[in-house]
Amino acid sequence: MKTDLDLQKYNVRTDLALEAKEQAEGLSGGIIPGVHSETTEVDGVKTTALHIQNEQGSQAIGKMIGQYVTIEVPGLRNGDTMLQDRVATEFAKHFESFLQRLSISKTARVLIVGLGNWNVTPDALGPLVVENVMVTRHFFELMPDQVAPGYRPVSAVAPGVLGTTGIESSEIVQGIVDRSKPDLVIAIDALASRSLERVNTTIQIADIGIHPGSGIGNKRKGLTCEILGVPVIAIGVPTVVYASTIVNNTFDLMRSHMEAQKGDNNKIFGLLNEMEEHERLLLVKEVLSPIGHDLLVTPKEVDQFIEDIANIIASGLNASLHEAVDTDNVAAYTH
Amino acid sequence: MKTDLDLQKYNVRTDLALEAKEQAEGLSGGIIPGVHSETTEVDGVKTTALHIQNEQGSQAIGKMIGQYVTIEVPGLRNGDTMLQDRVATEFAKHFESFLQRLSISKTARVLIVGLGNWNVTPDALGPLVVENVMVTRHFFELMPDQVAPGYRPVSAVAPGVLGTTGIESSEIVQGIVDRSKPDLVIAIDALASRSLERVNTTIQIADIGIHPGSGIGNKRKGLTCEILGVPVIAIGVPTVVYASTIVNNTFDLMRSHMEAQKGDNNKIFGLLNEMEEHERLLLVKEVLSPIGHDLLVTPKEVDQFIEDIANIIASGLNASLHEAVDTDNVAAYTH
Amino acid sequence: MKTDLDLQKYNVRTDLALEAKEQAEGLSGGIIPGVHSETTEVDGVKTTALHIQNEQGSQAIGKMIGQYVTIEVPGLRNGDTMLQDRVATEFAKHFESFLQRLSISKTARVLIVGLGNWNVTPDALGPLVVENVMVTRHFFELMPDQVAPGYRPVSAVAPGVLGTTGIESSEIVQGIVDRSKPDLVIAIDALASRSLERVNTTIQIADIGIHPGSGIGNKRKGLTCEILGVPVIAIGVPTVVYASTIVNNTFDLMRSHMEAQKGDNNKIFGLLNEMEEHERLLLVKEVLSPIGHDLLVTPKEVDQFIEDIANIIASGLNASLHEAVDTDNVAAYTH
Amino acid sequence: MKTDLDLQKYNVRTDLALEAKEQAEGLSGGIIPGVHSETTEVDGVKTTALHIQNEQGSQAIGKMIGQYVTIEVPGLRNGDTMLQDRVATEFAKHFESFLQRLSISKTARVLIVGLGNWNVTPDALGPLVVENVMVTRHFFELMPDQVAPGYRPVSAVAPGVLGTTGIESSEIVQGIVDRSKPDLVIAIDALASRSLERVNTTIQIADIGIHPGSGIGNKRKGLTCEILGVPVIAIGVPTVVYASTIVNNTFDLMRSHMEAQKGDNNKIFGLLNEMEEHERLLLVKEVLSPIGHDLLVTPKEVDQFIEDIANIIASGLNASLHEAVDTDNVAAYTH
Repeated sequence: MKTDLDLQKYNVRTDLALEAKEQAEGLSGGIIPGVHSETTEVDGVKTTALHIQNEQGSQAIGKMIGQYVTIEVPGLRNGDTMLQDRVATEFAKHFESFLQRLSISKTARVLIVGLGNWNVTPDALGPLVVENVMVTRHFFELMPDQVAPGYRPVSAVAPGVLGTTGIESSEIVQGIVDRSKPDLVIAIDALASRSLERVNTTIQIADIGIHPGSGIGNKRKGLTCEILGVPVIAIGVPTVVYASTIVNNTFDLMRSHMEAQKGDNNKIFGLLNEMEEHERLLLVKEVLSPIGHDLLVTPKEVDQFIEDIANIIASGLNASLHEAVDTDNVAAYTH
Repeated sequence: MKTDLDLQKYNVRTDLALEAKEQAEGLSGGIIPGVHSETTEVDGVKTTALHIQNEQGSQAIGKMIGQYVTIEVPGLRNGDTMLQDRVATEFAKHFESFLQRLSISKTARVLIVGLGNWNVTPDALGPLVVENVMVTRHFFELMPDQVAPGYRPVSAVAPGVLGTTGIESSEIVQGIVDRSKPDLVIAIDALASRSLERVNTTIQIADIGIHPGSGIGNKRKGLTCEILGVPVIAIGVPTVVYASTIVNNTFDLMRSHMEAQKGDNNKIFGLLNEMEEHERLLLVKEVLSPIGHDLLVTPKEVDQFIEDIANIIASGLNASLHEAVDTDNVAAYTH
Repeated sequence: MKTDLDLQKYNVRTDLALEAKEQAEGLSGGIIPGVHSETTEVDGVKTTALHIQNEQGSQAIGKMIGQYVTIEVPGLRNGDTMLQDRVATEFAKHFESFLQRLSISKTARVLIVGLGNWNVTPDALGPLVVENVMVTRHFFELMPDQVAPGYRPVSAVAPGVLGTTGIESSEIVQGIVDRSKPDLVIAIDALASRSLERVNTTIQIADIGIHPGSGIGNKRKGLTCEILGVPVIAIGVPTVVYASTIVNNTFDLMRSHMEAQKGDNNKIFGLLNEMEEHERLLLVKEVLSPIGHDLLVTPKEVDQFIEDIANIIASGLNASLHEAVDTDNVAAYTH
Repeated sequence: MKTDLDLQKYNVRTDLALEAKEQAEGLSGGIIPGVHSETTEVDGVKTTALHIQNEQGSQAIGKMIGQYVTIEVPGLRNGDTMLQDRVATEFAKHFESFLQRLSISKTARVLIVGLGNWNVTPDALGPLVVENVMVTRHFFELMPDQVAPGYRPVSAVAPGVLGTTGIESSEIVQGIVDRSKPDLVIAIDALASRSLERVNTTIQIADIGIHPGSGIGNKRKGLTCEILGVPVIAIGVPTVVYASTIVNNTFDLMRSHMEAQKGDNNKIFGLLNEMEEHERLLLVKEVLSPIGHDLLVTPKEVDQFIEDIANIIASGLNASLHEAVDTDNVAAYTH
């Protein structure tokens, strides 16, 4: 039913596979077949490698089959530069393992795509990373003899958003890929999470590319290996929570609160259960009218958080992509 | 009790006097003594002149004694340039009546202060207006003989925010006022409203200046006639709703929804009433943890809305402040 | 000889066909076969239509065969908004005649390309125009039934510069043209002139597209009908003079100064003539070492000039491209 | 004579004391009484400590009595991050010696002032440094108990330029100093040099503050200890050469070229000497008309150079001002 499809926009939404898995586990009460995950934590940096192995796992958690790595660093909002350096190194390490798994050689050509809108702070992550990565492709084209060893050809573009260019960003990227013929595309995008804790503290790397509907912007077409003809590694950071997620969380909290207090009152327990999903989403929609489902919730200090995390990603990419750039102190290689 | 004071940050909050009045009327069930208002509506532009006449009125609605004009234009989010021109003209007309009421002469010197943070889109209203107004003071200082008639000395500054400068914006403005000696300060700030409808569709003009705690930023000191020694007209546009307002709205909607459906069930009715304000705010706090009370809710297209409304205000100010600038077509006078 | 080719970078350079013609006339002492021009002047707006009719004319002045219109407005640096509106209208009128000559229908799809570097003020003209034009293509794609009559599909991109993206801007544009299939490309670029008078006061429209080496940036490939497969109208504004032009001008002035004063002294006259072009360019190179030939001369107030002229072009384009936008007051249609 | 005063704007101009000394030495043919200097060079970083000891020295080279340190790094335009780190450390070391000479204690309060215009790339140095330094004053004001040891209160403002605010930047800074009461002001400004080699490769530190007429902008009042009541350390980087300097250089080169070639021809030697300074400046003025004396010459890649050098200065300041920030790796402490 079309109405219910539209109403799903008012449901809890997340672009993080890790959160989707947690949510599915909460509902099913346990292990999800076809999904494998491992978590390690060192000094405030928690890394989860998640493998959605088959269609069953994909269906269960609503994300594509593939490899996902999620780096969670609650302390990242404190502006601690030592911690930022450690996260950049951790990110670079995991990103290199993606390169290896995809058999990307040390000289393979890379196009970095920064999705999102420069002019909306929480959506500016992609363009900010693009501004900070080392771009080398033109040296290889114009003076191949003079490029020092340990570098590869890297190009970088920020294709803008549909409302500003009038063209789907995926169409622009396809055109640029056709012409510049990279061997790998790295797509960076701002995401939505379902939990405020993860906003601006989490980086997700995935080998599945960008799919329609993911990220903050209105992507209607994806950036995937099928579409572009080359592998696509997606890097995302949740920078917002949708307002609809907050409203749904409020309903849930109110329900559990009343259940806790009046657990013996079956009447109320029944009443609350009676409120079906359809009905709940109608209420969410009512709260959020008239502006609708696309309201973003963001912390006031979003500008600083985004800048810090864009630097981390740019530093990590520079170190992963160029052998001559040192992973021990990657932060110094960006401007 | 300190805790309850802190919890008030998790309550519904609004910087619009009009909304505070509506809220007070909702609670009291009718007219508020000491508060007078008149509303007119012409072709989609609704203007309310609100006069808080005395301490009683001020207490009742929680806003300062003074004159407030609120211009509401729901169509403003559609990018209709004809409508924008009409709103600029309407704004200029009302702003001029503030100048007259404050006996500001046609040659009086004016300082325009754009409060807020350049780098956070919904907080960039003030700096954007400052960038677009005509600045003339230096011509009067450097070549007074050559200034055409019909202009006055206007200066404009964007003092930044505490987190970026380390200094309260009010201290910076005081220092600039001391040195440049304007006869009037106009302070522009991004506000929070309690209703999503009013976000980026509403302009408030008030003769009360800027008070601590108002606006999106962390103002801890005000910009008022008492502090600066000259009259201060405040211009504000709600560009966000606080996430706490959305959560409170959700609780209210859920309550009324359950009451409507189960109105005969006294048990539940009682249960819902039992949830006291203190308890409710604790739940709001729980929903919004760990980032806290300062989460902003903003539409995704905030950049375009803010730019449009900053142009309207700059155009209106240029026409109001300089006789030589024509109110019939104010839009052309900004860049 | 390679050396002499390189030395030409140190010669007087202009991207304006009008200046190239003036220069050729100065050398030849009169009319240039194959080049036709007509000038009109109304209230401080001087318009020259220049037609390079054949290969002979093209060789003589060193510009491509085609139609050029140059609008010169010395008063444009004064910030006079009435004059700006008149120039926008004049620009729109001439631009429409280009559309007619190229048989571009009222519904033909247009891609606007803003060449240049956002982060270097005199090179930011193209991106600034792109930011200010009305973009409509996505409405035609997503909701064709709801687009009001009088509009056409317009898209707009700023492809960045080689040093930032690692990819030639012409390659990026080719890719976008392949995918989005416009019927016409409009390319906007910042130019170099040979005279300071024309900096930020002149607009050139030409039907020849963008050729390698033109404009401030390092374009190595062009944007032409041959390359893109659709007509390309180029719009350019000189925003700089090359430092080498200034140095050459200085040599010329010194020579004519000495000749004027000591015209009877044949010895000196001979000496000055003896300084051949090759020798002169070596001196220019010496003056400009070590940074080389790419030094830009720009007025300090370049930011305001560029912003004004970008608004004029955006307003004029909006009026020319969309019948529903009124040429009588085009300035109001941009943000 | 007024005319000659005005003509001086068309002469060679430099804001670097080192260049003024070199020029004076060239004219006098040797040592300048009252001026002492020492130069050291290590691995491509050349540092000159210049002491103008008395009025005689000040008159001779046209700069104020005081201490100047100039760090010259020709390789700085190559984007070498290792070299940038070394320069930041060198800068920090010299800056600390200024703090010691002025007896600025480790807890003294500091205000950093970034002069110049955000929107004009070569004039944006000051605002860029301000954006990158650590600001801590508000923590000391709001939560003094929680500030870690090893930090001092630092605030930072970018007061804008006269053409944008209508107020002299020195008036704005005076007002802010009056209110925020720092013990030291550090003023950062973009300068003009007389040599292209030094553009974007040189940093000058001086204990004399900012004087009218220095820097790229139109400062008409200074920022000095006399005016502000606290010591002022000025940090400057030449980011442009004035066009008038280039033209004068061209005249000089032509003269020496002709003398070299025709040294035996007394007639010409005489002729060239006859061209007096007044006459020469009139010719310079003629070359630069109609835009006048304020034309800036800047390399095309100015944006990247400025960003790199702003990071170096911000890193160096962070390390010098806060004991807890390490001079061994200062680059990591800025964002």
